[in-house]
Amino acid sequence: MATVKRLMECVPNFSEGRNKEIIEKIVQPFRATDGVRLLDYSSDEDHNRTVVTVVGDPEPLKAAVLEAIGIAQQHIDLTKHEGQHPRMGAVDVVPFIPIKNVTVDDAIALSKEVGAEIASRYNIPVFLYEKSASAPHRENLAAIRKGEFEGMAEKIKQEEWKPDFGPVERHPTSGTVAVGARMPLVAYNVNLNTSDLEIASAIAKKVRFIGGGLRFCKAMGVELTERGITQVSMNLTDYTKTAVYRAHEMVRMEARRYGVEIVGAEIVGLVPMAALIDVAEYYLGLEQFSIDQVLENKIME
Amino acid sequence: MATVKRLMECVPNFSEGRNKEIIEKIVQPFRATDGVRLLDYSSDEDHNRTVVTVVGDPEPLKAAVLEAIGIAQQHIDLTKHEGQHPRMGAVDVVPFIPIKNVTVDDAIALSKEVGAEIASRYNIPVFLYEKSASAPHRENLAAIRKGEFEGMAEKIKQEEWKPDFGPVERHPTSGTVAVGARMPLVAYNVNLNTSDLEIASAIAKKVRFIGGGLRFCKAMGVELTERGITQVSMNLTDYTKTAVYRAHEMVRMEARRYGVEIVGAEIVGLVPMAALIDVAEYYLGLEQFSIDQVLENKIME
Repeated sequence: MATVKRLMECVPNFSEGRNKEIIEKIVQPFRATDGVRLLDYSSDEDHNRTVVTVVGDPEPLKAAVLEAIGIAQQHIDLTKHEGQHPRMGAVDVVPFIPIKNVTVDDAIALSKEVGAEIASRYNIPVFLYEKSASAPHRENLAAIRKGEFEGMAEKIKQEEWKPDFGPVERHPTSGTVAVGARMPLVAYNVNLNTSDLEIASAIAKKVRFIGGGLRFCKAMGVELTERGITQVSMNLTDYTKTAVYRAHEMVRMEARRYGVEIVGAEIVGLVPMAALIDVAEYYLGLEQFSIDQVLENKIME
Repeated sequence: MATVKRLMECVPNFSEGRNKEIIEKIVQPFRATDGVRLLDYSSDEDHNRTVVTVVGDPEPLKAAVLEAIGIAQQHIDLTKHEGQHPRMGAVDVVPFIPIKNVTVDDAIALSKEVGAEIASRYNIPVFLYEKSASAPHRENLAAIRKGEFEGMAEKIKQEEWKPDFGPVERHPTSGTVAVGARMPLVAYNVNLNTSDLEIASAIAKKVRFIGGGLRFCKAMGVELTERGITQVSMNLTDYTKTAVYRAHEMVRMEARRYGVEIVGAEIVGLVPMAALIDVAEYYLGLEQFSIDQVLENKIME
């Protein structure tokens, strides 16, 4: 039988969303590297930013990501960059996400290797963020990036914002970069049979982490005006710990107080298979089920 | 992006379970053919039979299956075969099962191509069975195989058992073969908080097709003596039509009459991803969910 296939995802964000020639050059290593697969890249002209989704074995993925960063450094000059999306570097953020037969610890280790290599090879200061962060105040990307490229020249000299790798000096054209590990996001929305946004918002506040709710849940109330209903819109930032069914049942539980019921739900974008298998396991009450029993996993091995 | 990958499964049963040298020769084409993957093969000495599980693109899969059948014909002589499992041919049965980006109609078409080719290349009479059957009385494999190799010499001469392809004469050493298409089986058991086997059996009878229950459900009551409970043990023969959640909820509904509750469930062996995703969709009430949103599907494409 074949050896077990390891799959790590990387979603690097590059600060170029307009010049197609440059964008193609940047993604080229993801097309050309064996063991790596370019799943998607989408450029936003207003944001002037390109988001790449690539998966592969950690080793070739690391090589391809580093090569793409080198190409971005050659072609992007942050002193001339303008766009609506906040940014602090030519390569703004590089998250690694464990997908299959790799753990979040593997993703953390990989992010640190890549961070160290970015610093030594390209002389760009690197902040480790999310699950790779070296201190709690560095977990949140928005906190690191605050002040953006322009403000980073001074910010980086403060002790609390000393980079994890590389020079204590903003790179003149490439700025700084955040590298880290995170779990795949699950964007999960639950529809309610009320048009009252206040109810949806009140439920969202109770379900989410900052309101005393589930640890890996962000949530807000949203109006679906055409349908005359509302929605609790959630981001589940670690479905292995805050399961989809748990968020669902907690919304149901809180809705009960208002005499409101769930009338539907949706998953936005991609979702890891394991997040949905877990839902089936819970509602069926499966005993001793292993994800290896899923036929497709056997085929993918 | 890469082209869509088609995956058909084939589970051919060969009437040799003892001679390892011959078994290795038979499975060799599944190892050697590009685009085909040997997932499993297991031999039973008492049955004197080997069950192979192989997946691949329909075209190379067809070639590999035909090659393996030729090898089996060279090395297996049914006049000398003894074993506990009923059998009518050196290659006893060849089911094709749609897995991914292929339909059951594709599996039916493939089974007919393979059947015609077995007849013309190896002079073996072929019965189409299950979803490929040319008449209702030929759907059930057990009905076709009744009489086994020994009885087939006469049986095949009856009009109602005329083969779909090949000579109206049992092959002297290779016998006859059944080729067809079926959906993947889901073996699904639901545990009940009663030790009374009669209750489990009564529920099984109501849930299953022959008792007036679900179309693609076979079921029986089973005692789990060590745990002091019972189980409704089911085979779901087409999960796209008789969904896992529907069988589950029907057991729950019928159990209510006896004041009995579901205390767990299990899936035995492999299960297609879609069967479990469907469960998650049902219990969450997902709107407009597509299996293409499953990350792993995107990666496998």
